[in-house]
Amino acid sequence: MIDINKAIDALKWEKEPRGLYEPISYTLASGGKRIRPTLTLIGAEAIVNGSLLNGDAIEQAVPAALAFEVFHNFTLMHDDVMDRAEIRRGQPTVHVKWNDNTAILSGDQMLIEAYKLLSDVPADKLPQVLKWFNEMATGICEGQQMDMDFEHESHISIDDYLKMIELKTAVLLANALRTGGYIAGANESEQQALYEYGLHIGLAFQIQDDILDVYGDPKTFGKAIGGDICSNKKTFLLLTALETADAETKAELLQWLIATEHDEQKKIAAVTAIYSRLGVREAGETVMEEHTSLALAQLDKLPQNAATEKLRVLAEQLVTRNK
Amino acid sequence: MIDINKAIDALKWEKEPRGLYEPISYTLASGGKRIRPTLTLIGAEAIVNGSLLNGDAIEQAVPAALAFEVFHNFTLMHDDVMDRAEIRRGQPTVHVKWNDNTAILSGDQMLIEAYKLLSDVPADKLPQVLKWFNEMATGICEGQQMDMDFEHESHISIDDYLKMIELKTAVLLANALRTGGYIAGANESEQQALYEYGLHIGLAFQIQDDILDVYGDPKTFGKAIGGDICSNKKTFLLLTALETADAETKAELLQWLIATEHDEQKKIAAVTAIYSRLGVREAGETVMEEHTSLALAQLDKLPQNAATEKLRVLAEQLVTRNK
Repeated sequence: MIDINKAIDALKWEKEPRGLYEPISYTLASGGKRIRPTLTLIGAEAIVNGSLLNGDAIEQAVPAALAFEVFHNFTLMHDDVMDRAEIRRGQPTVHVKWNDNTAILSGDQMLIEAYKLLSDVPADKLPQVLKWFNEMATGICEGQQMDMDFEHESHISIDDYLKMIELKTAVLLANALRTGGYIAGANESEQQALYEYGLHIGLAFQIQDDILDVYGDPKTFGKAIGGDICSNKKTFLLLTALETADAETKAELLQWLIATEHDEQKKIAAVTAIYSRLGVREAGETVMEEHTSLALAQLDKLPQNAATEKLRVLAEQLVTRNK
Repeated sequence: MIDINKAIDALKWEKEPRGLYEPISYTLASGGKRIRPTLTLIGAEAIVNGSLLNGDAIEQAVPAALAFEVFHNFTLMHDDVMDRAEIRRGQPTVHVKWNDNTAILSGDQMLIEAYKLLSDVPADKLPQVLKWFNEMATGICEGQQMDMDFEHESHISIDDYLKMIELKTAVLLANALRTGGYIAGANESEQQALYEYGLHIGLAFQIQDDILDVYGDPKTFGKAIGGDICSNKKTFLLLTALETADAETKAELLQWLIATEHDEQKKIAAVTAIYSRLGVREAGETVMEEHTSLALAQLDKLPQNAATEKLRVLAEQLVTRNK
């Protein structure tokens, strides 16, 4: 199995001008779970192991895997500027450590670097891989725009929210898997199955994130519990609460949303109590489990091997981790 | 001949979310000279007319031509944020009309749109066109970084400056021409000749811009004369002056550079007088003419036809316009 961290570390950033490349190196060295490139390689493995046709196919998928990781880190660098986020993976964000201009320009260069990596995809596969990559990248920008628009909009439906997280998060996982499979020779039905699996697992992950932000174990969650509540973030839980609450409960909830002077812990406790009363956690878990089931169902359309077994375990862990 | 303005107008931006696409539409509709896509088409014409092989080749070059124009406008959108520029082509810049976040995200999407257009290049030509495009885009980011670094550096050599404008400006013109020719079937020597022509003409253009900013005719220049002097911009003229002045003149010039309280017109007049005394205009014209000659020499390696004649006229106008 290819060590994706080693492959990322092997990317060379010791180039001039340092002001452009140092923030890229800093960002990629800051870790992260490397989920996207790992999915690309699993996507390739799933097909290669199934067809036993081409042992080089996983090697061939590495540039695309790296492209997804570099692209993902580009989105974080620019999103952190837009969201004025100060900490990422326990370190100051690039615009804090350097400045906004650096984060903008090094982010631009990272996007270009992703396309550079992509250009190493075998020539016969390149047109399709590039087309998918562009569609995915477009979706992610559209999702980020929707997310920013949501901050200023008072009525957001659950469907709008699901569309936003699909674009902002799920299409990248979906395309990372599909691209890996495609490079390894997946047929159209397998490409589609890998994509759909990634899409549903991405949606499930994001809804779970919303749930864990409120109901997670402070010891293992890694962030402070209730952060979304404090910042009035329009999560699946909040939108479901607003959609399902009776007039009195809704008024109580809105009271907390517009309050500018309040004790944070008190707000978290009060909003969490409303959530629990309305059963929004259970509503979230239901939608999450639906998407997990839809993801698992896709696996039947793929070769049954060690790689697809990893995808099965990933989906199952997702559900149990939350309970 | 293909009408490049019509092709740009035909690009569709009536998509959701409006917050993402409206600034793109606004920027592309704001005009500009469309030099880059025009060069791509001339590059294709130069080869097609010469070889008489493929009448569709110019049509095939249109997506790449559009990609260069969209890419160029992406760089303007992000550069304007970084430079805090408020006006572009007589209109408020995107970050002024909307806000910084909009300019960042719509700019990102424009870069992706450029790659989308590029993906319509014929599949057999795509790997090379993409590779060149990525190298060019990297050069432009490196050039912008150098330009930003120069603001804080006290010693910049003329060579550093020429390297910076080569990356920031000339490689785009060079690659636009080469890519057009390549799509139309240029051989390696022709590809190289188109590239070198573009590179030298780009350098000549930029040096001319520096000269016109000081010595241009206020009636035709379009911008206020002396803007570069007011903002202490490290132009070819200023760097040459600093490099060639005797101690006394250099001190006088530095005095004007560090002065925070002064009459703008007085500063422009004084610095222009120093420039004239040192003959930096003539030094700039000499370098400009050298590059123009080098550009013209490349044309001998290309088919002699209406398109290469356009390139000859373009180079010759460049020299005469300045005198």
